[in-house]
Parts: sequence; C-alpha cells; structure tokens
Amino acid sequence: MRFDRPGDVFLADCPARLTLEVIADKWSMVVLHALGSRPWRHGELRDLIGGISSKVLTQTLRRLERYGMLRRHEYAEVPRRVEYELTDLGRTLLPAIDALTAWAENHGAAVVDALEETA
Amino acid sequence: MRFDRPGDVFLADCPARLTLEVIADKWSMVVLHALGSRPWRHGELRDLIGGISSKVLTQTLRRLERYGMLRRHEYAEVPRRVEYELTDLGRTLLPAIDALTAWAENHGAAVVDALEETA
Repeated sequence: MRFDRPGDVFLADCPARLTLEVIADKWSMVVLHALGSRPWRHGELRDLIGGISSKVLTQTLRRLERYGMLRRHEYAEVPRRVEYELTDLGRTLLPAIDALTAWAENHGAAVVDALEETA
Repeated sequence: MRFDRPGDVFLADCPARLTLEVIADKWSMVVLHALGSRPWRHGELRDLIGGISSKVLTQTLRRLERYGMLRRHEYAEVPRRVEYELTDLGRTLLPAIDALTAWAENHGAAVVDALEETA
C-alpha cells in the first residue's frame, strides 16, 4: 500500500475515495454488471434484479448517470422507448466488477457458512 | 452473462447476491484493502481512513467478522492489544478489491469531472 501519493484511496475527499463511495452502493455493481452485456430498459432491469424496487432502481440509475458511468438514451419512437447503456468511462470499470462478481459466485456459499456459524 | 445457474448474482437471496451486498458497503472495501497489507488495530484504522467515525468503523469490522472476512485477535498483554486480520476467505477477495481500488485511483478524476458537468 502507498500512503503518500495523491490517488491514495484512504485520503478523505480525494477523487478515488469518492469513486469508491459511488460504486460501493448496494445495487450499483449489479446494475453495472448487467449493462456490461448490452443496453437495458428500466423494466427489464427490474425484472432481472430480484429484490429491487422501481423507485430504488431509478435512483441507482440516476446516480450512476451523474457519476458518468451510464447514459440514458431515449428513442424517437411511439410508444416511447428508453434504454440505459454504459459510457466509455463506465466500461473501464467492467473488469473490476467482473472480478468481484466472480468472487461472489465462487465464495458466496462460504460466506453463508460463516454467517450461520456466528448467528 | 448467465441467467440460468444457481450462482447467478442477479437472483435474489442467492449466496452470491448476499456476498455482493456485504462487500458493497461504503467502508468495507477500504477496510479490507487496508487489512490486505497487515493486521491493524482499531485506532490505527481510524487514523488511516479519513472520514470514518469510531462507531461506524466498529460496526464495519463486526459485520466483516460475521461474514467470515476477518477475525479479531486479542493479545494477552497489558495494556490490552486487539488487532484485526484477514481470514483465508477474506484473503481470496483481495485481487478483486485491488482491481477496484486501482480503477478508482486511475479514473477517479474522470468521475469528478462527470459530477461537475451535471451539477
């Protein structure tokens, strides 16, 4: 670890720290992981992600848009069609997200075991 | 992406999803990243991590311990000395955490730019 350079994640208020706070949100990683495959509509994402409410999904999408991770694309069609897609910046995050989701898939059962031992 | 197998991160209540929820906490990744280098005492971690209160750090450490990521080690010394260290399970998470923190260091400034454009 390095403690003396500008990008150090431990310094409060540094850009990297801000970034970590953005992506360390309960639903952000799942949404970003989904958008890694293709653009999605709001309703499709809600169906895909069990347990997220429509309102919370909207908040998550807006926050990720504000942080430059995704953009909202509205097609000139009737009925109205809106899709969410990753920006180039959002796309740079995919390898790290994939590493994290792969870990979760491989070690999730061990985490459940640990939880049950201490319950 | 795969939508039809047990470990899929999108299925509500699956172990992987639970795991994602654990680590997608605001401070968990920073704490795990710090513990990747060596065991730390509570006060040392608080000094290292800007902006975290003593109470919230305690809650973060307890949650990560419950999920099997770290253990609390109390030395038989006077004055009392307590350190927190990664478990083997917690250590398997380090490569993914490192990928995420490296991304934050490299792209944090771009995220700040995006934020300022939409402010």
